[in-house]
Amino acid sequence: MITDEVRKKIRAIVGPQNALESDLERFSYSYDSSFVPLLPANKPEIVVRPLTVEEVSQLMAVAYQHEIPVTPRGAASGRTGGSVPLQGGISLCLDRMTRIVELDEKNMTVTAEAGVRTIDLYNHCATRGLFYPPDPASWKFSTIGGNVAENAGGMRAVKYGVTSDYVMGLEVVLADGTVLETGGKAVKNVTGYDLKRLFTGSEGTLGVITRALLRLIPMPKRRGTLRIAFGSLDDGCATVHRMLQAGIVPAAAEIMDRVSIEAVARYSRMEIDPAVEACLIVEIDGEDEAALETQTKRIEAVAKECGSREFLAARSEKESDELWAVRRGLSSAVAALAPNRLGEDISVPRDAFPEVVRRIRAISEKYRLPIAVYGHAGDGNLHPSVLCDLANPEEAKRVHQAVDEIFAAALAVGGTLSGEHGIGITKRPYIAQALGEAGLRTLKAVKKALDPKGILNPGKIW
Amino acid sequence: MITDEVRKKIRAIVGPQNALESDLERFSYSYDSSFVPLLPANKPEIVVRPLTVEEVSQLMAVAYQHEIPVTPRGAASGRTGGSVPLQGGISLCLDRMTRIVELDEKNMTVTAEAGVRTIDLYNHCATRGLFYPPDPASWKFSTIGGNVAENAGGMRAVKYGVTSDYVMGLEVVLADGTVLETGGKAVKNVTGYDLKRLFTGSEGTLGVITRALLRLIPMPKRRGTLRIAFGSLDDGCATVHRMLQAGIVPAAAEIMDRVSIEAVARYSRMEIDPAVEACLIVEIDGEDEAALETQTKRIEAVAKECGSREFLAARSEKESDELWAVRRGLSSAVAALAPNRLGEDISVPRDAFPEVVRRIRAISEKYRLPIAVYGHAGDGNLHPSVLCDLANPEEAKRVHQAVDEIFAAALAVGGTLSGEHGIGITKRPYIAQALGEAGLRTLKAVKKALDPKGILNPGKIW
Repeated sequence: MITDEVRKKIRAIVGPQNALESDLERFSYSYDSSFVPLLPANKPEIVVRPLTVEEVSQLMAVAYQHEIPVTPRGAASGRTGGSVPLQGGISLCLDRMTRIVELDEKNMTVTAEAGVRTIDLYNHCATRGLFYPPDPASWKFSTIGGNVAENAGGMRAVKYGVTSDYVMGLEVVLADGTVLETGGKAVKNVTGYDLKRLFTGSEGTLGVITRALLRLIPMPKRRGTLRIAFGSLDDGCATVHRMLQAGIVPAAAEIMDRVSIEAVARYSRMEIDPAVEACLIVEIDGEDEAALETQTKRIEAVAKECGSREFLAARSEKESDELWAVRRGLSSAVAALAPNRLGEDISVPRDAFPEVVRRIRAISEKYRLPIAVYGHAGDGNLHPSVLCDLANPEEAKRVHQAVDEIFAAALAVGGTLSGEHGIGITKRPYIAQALGEAGLRTLKAVKKALDPKGILNPGKIW
Repeated sequence: MITDEVRKKIRAIVGPQNALESDLERFSYSYDSSFVPLLPANKPEIVVRPLTVEEVSQLMAVAYQHEIPVTPRGAASGRTGGSVPLQGGISLCLDRMTRIVELDEKNMTVTAEAGVRTIDLYNHCATRGLFYPPDPASWKFSTIGGNVAENAGGMRAVKYGVTSDYVMGLEVVLADGTVLETGGKAVKNVTGYDLKRLFTGSEGTLGVITRALLRLIPMPKRRGTLRIAFGSLDDGCATVHRMLQAGIVPAAAEIMDRVSIEAVARYSRMEIDPAVEACLIVEIDGEDEAALETQTKRIEAVAKECGSREFLAARSEKESDELWAVRRGLSSAVAALAPNRLGEDISVPRDAFPEVVRRIRAISEKYRLPIAVYGHAGDGNLHPSVLCDLANPEEAKRVHQAVDEIFAAALAVGGTLSGEHGIGITKRPYIAQALGEAGLRTLKAVKKALDPKGILNPGKIW
């Protein structure tokens, strides 16, 4: 319980207008974009919206002194409940820290506060010909702080990597309010343990990320899109593997199974060849048209070797947008098929992609639940979407069993619970199985060392 | 002190032939490739050479129980004293763990034990067209375990990154003997804190790395070498920056200052143009000759814009080897100039390269010590070599003052103490200045959490 005295301290730090205390306001901060049920217990006692790192530091010092749970929050676009305040306390919302502090063109870096939206950062850099590649699906509203805290991925990961591949430095407020600056603009840096990587993906449990120094690369000059249809999912996966093994690295390689394709077809009233079992959308990029053409030819050759049924290269930006629209509309199209859609996020070794999809097919049949499978074939990160009606208790039970088995299948083929969404609340039950006793014990030891009172985002990860 | 009873236990674990106890044998494990002085105190009480992770685990359990310091050791090619056993105890040498466990061509990964030499790993993968890029200067004798523990870099880092960019998973024996497996073959993985990155570069202070799962990429099909001469170091640096900003990423971009060039000239009895103040050796790679030619032309154009005086492109592998011979022979050539050479390793933001070199020039004059500067211009990692006679006490004093100021200069321009050699013993005095009080406190908290008795490589980093 936050006492009146503490509330006063908090209001004094951020100003009363940035300390939200009404029931309705607090309710609005009790959920995120995950399937964590709405519970009164998840309502924060107070929501604070600091503007500066000094304010965050002072807030954490107060929270530390009074042992108040603190749940950091960006845009709440997370899919695993990371910003849901499980133990009440403070919802620490960083949405007012929206400054892009510096764009250093010479060193190709950008420094941004936690609340900067991913797409705003991207656009800001793009105006100077610089490219910030990580593009989580939620990038139009997700924030950099949240991206770093969850180590967000995206479609471009196959070629360009994920958020952590771009984090050069962080400003982090520790549990007791200490401001830590780690990393810097030196590209190579082996001075002490890699703390920036430790905080990246720590889901708000080790510190509050207030600022990030991010690496940029030159913006590719040309982009192209290919759509390739296959008679089997295996053929599609084989195409991606052979491309990568031949050194043809696409900027994105998204695969969709039959269920997904049908969903899109129904949604957009398209006709589809009944023999098509999988579809690949590939983005390529390069310095000039010649580079794109070379890649297109090589990819077409590989796809043919793997038995492709159709190969389409966009001839214009409009055509390219049309091809991508299929993938972009997929999530909505799949969601429209049933009252609920439980979109999961597993990641497996690349060559295990077809095997894990086969296992998911079997799970789908066993539990009589349609499961659409799509995802980032280039890096083995897939999103099985269980289509269901959670209002039906018997069906809800089957759904949870099916999800359990999907995670078990991912682990069985040498994969992991999460490629880009984190563990949060929703995958907590599976973490021990994924990391083993020694792994979990090590995680907890690190947590205890950096947050001895356990006030930072309690109840997450394990 | 290791008691007779503990010695017996240790011999039983590894076999008496793998427990070295004679004075001479122990002496041989009291130093490495750094300038840490030979001291009787640095002699281990026993040297053990385990063959399996089970043996390492049992050894650590014994060490933990009896609170015996353990200093892990690979090939002892480190430059900062990382494998020097500062507090006696056990020198844990992993040189018998030399198995390449698996080359997984489909997932493009290789699994190797800690004692595998870097070059052996490289060659093994190369036979299958796969490329393990990290190439520390010592790669002909350095081992994978040491590379991971120090997060080794190399010349190819500008394009391909450093060791940590290739570590997908680790097997680590913790202080109490627990075997931890972390990471895996899934390319995207955000399940829990990034422990593999925490252990990578931890210099043997958090655990003993016994096995690494490493990412591979397709081997580039063609390589080419360029040598470009400049009338000033700034022009050379500017060329590298403009190349990178234009999206031309060389496989290596090594710069040498006038002192370095003269050293090579004297060593190999070459004539050099007196107006040449800096020389750049660039390696490019690509899919075919056309790709190399495009890059060559673009680099030549950029170099001209920046005022290059000479541009030479190797026409054959022999010519390429000749151009590289200059850079490869540099360390020996510089070393031949004086009785001692203190080669340092600082890393700065790319655009601060010329500024830090100017500061080093001033330090060289102030202390009347020749300092050769060369390094990886592409990533701001440079190696100033102080040429001196450490047998002269007055000069030795000046050398240490000069080195202090070199580190201060690196930090002053926003750089760091080490780009690829680690902190070890030699840079310990500067760590607090580099990381700040909060940074150092966080490092120590993590250390305490994972090694509560402080037995792992004590006396290193801080």
